[in-house]
Amino acid sequence: MTLASTRVSGLSSEVGKAVTVRGWITTVRSSGKVAFLVLRDGTGLLQCVLVKSAVTQDVWDRFAQLSLETSVAVTGDVRADARAPGGYELGVTDLAIVGTSPLDYPIQPKEHGIDFLLDHRHLWLRSPRQRAIATIRSELEQGIQDFFYQRDFLRVDTPILTAAIGERSGLFSTEYFDEGSAYLAQTGQLYGEAAAAAWGKIYTFGPTFRAEKSKTRRHLTEFWMIEPEVAWNDSNDNMKLQEQFVSYLVQRALEKRSAELTELERDLTKLEGIKPPFPRLEYTEAIDILHRKGSTTPWGDDLGAEDESLIVADYDLPVFVMNYPKEAKAFYMKENPADPRTVLCDDLLAPEGYGEMIGGSQREDDYDRLLKRIIEEGLDPAAYEWYLDLRRYGTFVHAGFGLGLERTIAWICGLPHLREAIAFPRMMHRLRP
Amino acid sequence: MTLASTRVSGLSSEVGKAVTVRGWITTVRSSGKVAFLVLRDGTGLLQCVLVKSAVTQDVWDRFAQLSLETSVAVTGDVRADARAPGGYELGVTDLAIVGTSPLDYPIQPKEHGIDFLLDHRHLWLRSPRQRAIATIRSELEQGIQDFFYQRDFLRVDTPILTAAIGERSGLFSTEYFDEGSAYLAQTGQLYGEAAAAAWGKIYTFGPTFRAEKSKTRRHLTEFWMIEPEVAWNDSNDNMKLQEQFVSYLVQRALEKRSAELTELERDLTKLEGIKPPFPRLEYTEAIDILHRKGSTTPWGDDLGAEDESLIVADYDLPVFVMNYPKEAKAFYMKENPADPRTVLCDDLLAPEGYGEMIGGSQREDDYDRLLKRIIEEGLDPAAYEWYLDLRRYGTFVHAGFGLGLERTIAWICGLPHLREAIAFPRMMHRLRP
Repeated sequence: MTLASTRVSGLSSEVGKAVTVRGWITTVRSSGKVAFLVLRDGTGLLQCVLVKSAVTQDVWDRFAQLSLETSVAVTGDVRADARAPGGYELGVTDLAIVGTSPLDYPIQPKEHGIDFLLDHRHLWLRSPRQRAIATIRSELEQGIQDFFYQRDFLRVDTPILTAAIGERSGLFSTEYFDEGSAYLAQTGQLYGEAAAAAWGKIYTFGPTFRAEKSKTRRHLTEFWMIEPEVAWNDSNDNMKLQEQFVSYLVQRALEKRSAELTELERDLTKLEGIKPPFPRLEYTEAIDILHRKGSTTPWGDDLGAEDESLIVADYDLPVFVMNYPKEAKAFYMKENPADPRTVLCDDLLAPEGYGEMIGGSQREDDYDRLLKRIIEEGLDPAAYEWYLDLRRYGTFVHAGFGLGLERTIAWICGLPHLREAIAFPRMMHRLRP
Repeated sequence: MTLASTRVSGLSSEVGKAVTVRGWITTVRSSGKVAFLVLRDGTGLLQCVLVKSAVTQDVWDRFAQLSLETSVAVTGDVRADARAPGGYELGVTDLAIVGTSPLDYPIQPKEHGIDFLLDHRHLWLRSPRQRAIATIRSELEQGIQDFFYQRDFLRVDTPILTAAIGERSGLFSTEYFDEGSAYLAQTGQLYGEAAAAAWGKIYTFGPTFRAEKSKTRRHLTEFWMIEPEVAWNDSNDNMKLQEQFVSYLVQRALEKRSAELTELERDLTKLEGIKPPFPRLEYTEAIDILHRKGSTTPWGDDLGAEDESLIVADYDLPVFVMNYPKEAKAFYMKENPADPRTVLCDDLLAPEGYGEMIGGSQREDDYDRLLKRIIEEGLDPAAYEWYLDLRRYGTFVHAGFGLGLERTIAWICGLPHLREAIAFPRMMHRLRP
């Protein structure tokens, strides 16, 4: 046990050498003379081979004590073997048990109900499927940072605890010392706009919260959003940035994490063609199409999940639906000069029925119009004084959007429900573990 | 105004061409025949020159209407000029006012009190100093991601809304549907440990919360933490990772953001030498040194801010103080076999009196000892069932740490108070804007 320990992902440089690898047992089998165990260590899987005649009786006896998720330190010689998972195999000379794993280990290689799995999320994460999703999520998160860093955006961390807020319903609140209630942010956008006036091109990357009693597969109460905001971008620039961003993420996943996508049995051909430009439909046009397809959603309403699925069914790309009616969208969106019943905004709908991935808009930059909308919506103008200041002092054309990370992951990974797209999902009836 | 618009940072490729640049007025001056304005657009500063005889009377009149933070679109020819800020100058042919800025713009080029500045944080962000800090923060955030990505760590987003929690006092709480109270996470560590068992090497990067009635310059109620957790790392490995990480961040700031550090008048020589290894002091040793220096802190207590300053005064590097008494630290830290009164942990103290940047430890991996500590601390074992599972099923040596982002930024930038290290700081009396 005095050898330096190695991770499974680092074995390619250790062929022909003796190493110790530590990890957890996933499978064991034995013929009586030769025994095999497969170890996972978080970086990969390693098949280890014990030949009874080549190891001590102690080591052989220890093999018999192994169970699912026993943690071990295995010492042996690294051999290249194309048939082995990962391409390497360990010829075992020593085996030490670090931590036993009782036979009641909850997650066995069989079907479990979803509530059971979520109750044991801390262990469920160890499965190959969950590891693949986590790896893709992490890759996309790096990709998000890289995309904006390469384009000279500053990352800005907007506050979670807020007094003034962008949307009103479905707020979590907490007592904040002598300041009254604080609300958990549903968006960082309003702060992002202040930062865009200061620094030109910015993005946020953080958790956001919705206290909505929704039980659909597309909703979490806590989810991560990425919200770029760009000074001098209009709605058209905004959609261009969105299609570049989404395409970059998809291509990055394909380039770096095709093994994990394949583990998830994702149809890669559905992702390979995701490149700009994405089709654009005016809201009014979308309503016409929906009516032809039998939807009864009236002009003026936001589109529901079924409507979104009907729209995207005609395309292999994400689809922009743009310029919604004012009453269906938030107060801060800029009135559309070409049709003042509508605002300059877009929803980007994922293909294959995965729903709205992005909501974006050009922001109202006219002081008087913005104040009027705040009052119309029944919001307190005093709470938005600082936000109005951005129009009072050197107002500027600007636009931004929010990408929902879990929805994007669900689409790219092909997950039927958002709950697998984050390590510890939070839903209406799910606060544990 | 039909020319493509350019950002100040992109002017180097536009020399000799006519461009339009949009931004905000920072200074104006005029001799009566020649007028100068300096524009900021978030990416840099640009000096623009108007010659009265070369522009229309309308343009010349518009110049006279400019005030601090007026937003404008300036068109002209790009010239290289070593004397100009940024190295380029614009010979103006047209000037359009986008948004006026009343003369009551709150932040003038004079001294303002800190409460006034914080009340106007949304505008204060526009100052060169705040831009420099934000740029360094963004660079460090990219550096944090890059450091771990290059080392094959998975990023994991641990929940903010939690039922079980790592430390007990100073919690913000909110009603969570029918599930009772949810608490805003003070740490993602416990979840990080589950993820480390699943995926080997992980880190978190998110906001954390402390509802502490603290008014010191070292505390925020909402701050960002980076928490790596590594399977099979012991306390020694853990400290090695910390010193590599911190050194990487400092060297990255120096390499990429020396202009911004210079804007902040940071003494770069204090940062240049920050490289591993960092000195290590046993807690017991540190107490002896403190007593020789006149401190009366008894063995058994955590070190206060003054003690930390006394310790680091002897060094030009961050200093590890390791293996604190059990009663001064959290329940999850592993008992030190060499001195069971203490635990295998470390605090990393920043140089120059900036205080504790990191707290880390090897985690208790023995089921019975951990359960005993949970009970001793008066915590409810039922709430920690899932956390105990990590010791029940294949326990593993592991260690991790939490780096406080704002403290690290404050040190690297040389900021006397954490409130400038984040765009919209949250403190006991500060929830707005």
